[in-house]
Amino acid sequence: MQPFQRDHFFNPSSPYAPALAVRRAYQEAKDVIARAIGAKADELVMTAGATESINLAFGSIDGHVVTSAIEHHAVLRAAEQHGNSTIVPVGKKGVVSVEAIAAAITPATTLVSVALANNELGTVQPLSKLAEIIRKERQRRRDNNDLTPIYLHSDASQGVGQLDVNVARLGVDLLTLNAGKIYGPKQVGLLWAHSGVRLRAQVFGGGQERGLRSGTENVAGVVGFSVALERAVNGRKAEAERLRKLRDNLQEQLTSAYSNVIISGDQKRRLPGHLHVSFPGLDAERLIFLLEMENVLLATGSACAANKGTRSHVLTAIGMSDEGADGSLRISLGHLSDEVTVRQGGEAIIRAVAKERERMGR
Amino acid sequence: MQPFQRDHFFNPSSPYAPALAVRRAYQEAKDVIARAIGAKADELVMTAGATESINLAFGSIDGHVVTSAIEHHAVLRAAEQHGNSTIVPVGKKGVVSVEAIAAAITPATTLVSVALANNELGTVQPLSKLAEIIRKERQRRRDNNDLTPIYLHSDASQGVGQLDVNVARLGVDLLTLNAGKIYGPKQVGLLWAHSGVRLRAQVFGGGQERGLRSGTENVAGVVGFSVALERAVNGRKAEAERLRKLRDNLQEQLTSAYSNVIISGDQKRRLPGHLHVSFPGLDAERLIFLLEMENVLLATGSACAANKGTRSHVLTAIGMSDEGADGSLRISLGHLSDEVTVRQGGEAIIRAVAKERERMGR
Repeated sequence: MQPFQRDHFFNPSSPYAPALAVRRAYQEAKDVIARAIGAKADELVMTAGATESINLAFGSIDGHVVTSAIEHHAVLRAAEQHGNSTIVPVGKKGVVSVEAIAAAITPATTLVSVALANNELGTVQPLSKLAEIIRKERQRRRDNNDLTPIYLHSDASQGVGQLDVNVARLGVDLLTLNAGKIYGPKQVGLLWAHSGVRLRAQVFGGGQERGLRSGTENVAGVVGFSVALERAVNGRKAEAERLRKLRDNLQEQLTSAYSNVIISGDQKRRLPGHLHVSFPGLDAERLIFLLEMENVLLATGSACAANKGTRSHVLTAIGMSDEGADGSLRISLGHLSDEVTVRQGGEAIIRAVAKERERMGR
Repeated sequence: MQPFQRDHFFNPSSPYAPALAVRRAYQEAKDVIARAIGAKADELVMTAGATESINLAFGSIDGHVVTSAIEHHAVLRAAEQHGNSTIVPVGKKGVVSVEAIAAAITPATTLVSVALANNELGTVQPLSKLAEIIRKERQRRRDNNDLTPIYLHSDASQGVGQLDVNVARLGVDLLTLNAGKIYGPKQVGLLWAHSGVRLRAQVFGGGQERGLRSGTENVAGVVGFSVALERAVNGRKAEAERLRKLRDNLQEQLTSAYSNVIISGDQKRRLPGHLHVSFPGLDAERLIFLLEMENVLLATGSACAANKGTRSHVLTAIGMSDEGADGSLRISLGHLSDEVTVRQGGEAIIRAVAKERERMGR
């Protein structure tokens, strides 16, 4: 990114050669990004992150929207803003029910939006089955000469680098990605939409991004995103396998030490690097504080929600008790995690839990 | 910016101490930015650039909008999108007429938007006089128990570092700034609004920026913006004086060489580092190409418009002939300009013009 923040700072729309070189670098970065998800560069709209992408997707849609109760706030708030939406409840395992989504689809439904992986529980959602439902509904409409479109959107920000994010294999019509979740820069993201989807600009001006999202392009950011995404996609299989082992060991370590720990999220359908554990009766905020002193950095729920001190809507949606929710830790493993640090992290969690139980006389 | 792109990459909403340190750095950067324009940090909404800020301002407003014909595309397109707007024509000197704006204000007008300095001509607009008009209209409404608000918005992106951008002295109610115009990062900007203005969120999600603009904060970008803005504001007077001399010398150099060169934009009300020259009958695109080979980088109009090969709406608005517009160069001087390079640049322009005239037999 640094060359584009320093010497190659030109506005990619400027007419002289050094600016054209910057434009070329920007286009090449978009090509790399497109290739990584099996798409074409001119189907991408580069945005300031997943939240903007989600809002652009929802803002482009008229008609009825179906989504799930465990979506990220950006999806739930965009659906609320959209007005005409159905929020489908989710079972105890934190996996969206294909049947429930299918039942919520009406003849007026134009968008179904389900994240590839839940950001708190790490549960991987049955996107290809949802895509199948959408295809059937599309066929039904075609047979009835009904021209109402219906699209599947997925925010895959949470899954990149651990799951396949090829748009054709996912079966989605719109895809949201975020650079910040894969060691790329913050405030950089994209909305992919196949060429049949008519997006509607939300920001007006100089006409960048095919007129769909005006503003001088974030050259450095998009270049950074392209490198981060390429690495994440290329290294995915090995990294997923590595993280799965680390996570399984950690889960084993914690459940061996405390038999009443709750592991949430479908055990077979989880992000490999993700572990959601609850110690009912304990205060997760205090655990985080104790762990931090041992350089173990954990969150309770999603960062935005955690910051507001509100209880996670995801844990409420899967029917977890308040006591369980308040004692919940969301553990994300990643590039910085290895066998030694994860084992030490597990030991630190066990010590912190023991300390808190003692303090509370439990 | 680099520490926040590398080691201090934490989400500022995460609960652990290293993330809180990132949050503090973000808040401090906003404090620095606020101080630089005489505002409070909690009156700022950090955005992905001036275009988004302008769209946020316009999207927050119901009622009638008044703006000028020489505004940036972002303002004109946002006004168009807004629907209820009057575009006030501008005289030959490229300065917005206070009387024309006053005449366009109706009892339903809620927003007047005029850029501090025009991005093509460099002309500085009479913002404090416009503020006076708005104050009078506000008083008139108050006297009539009319609660319809009226605000003055200005995109000052083009003026920072050369003009005073203190919000109180400008007399504005809303101000747009952009980091990329002052050697800061691209896709970083802000909308300032005084606490009486009710902004309306355009992007929904995690509730960042007081719920007005969701999305994980651009920590590195905002830190970069704060440094760039502080430097621009602190160095303004000396830099403006330095640039004015360089620009005046360049203007003298060009007008001495070619008596029929047109210098556009009010001579007394221009950005000190800005020079707009036209060589009627010549093709500016060819001049730019010739100059580029001598490492002199110039644009024809605004980058976004130039890129689309359309004639500048600004030059059309001030009544310039097509021949003049097509032979126009927009010369911006800045940190990299000094006496030697500007004189050499002037010589290169003179040579390029001579070459083109010869080629065309003029």
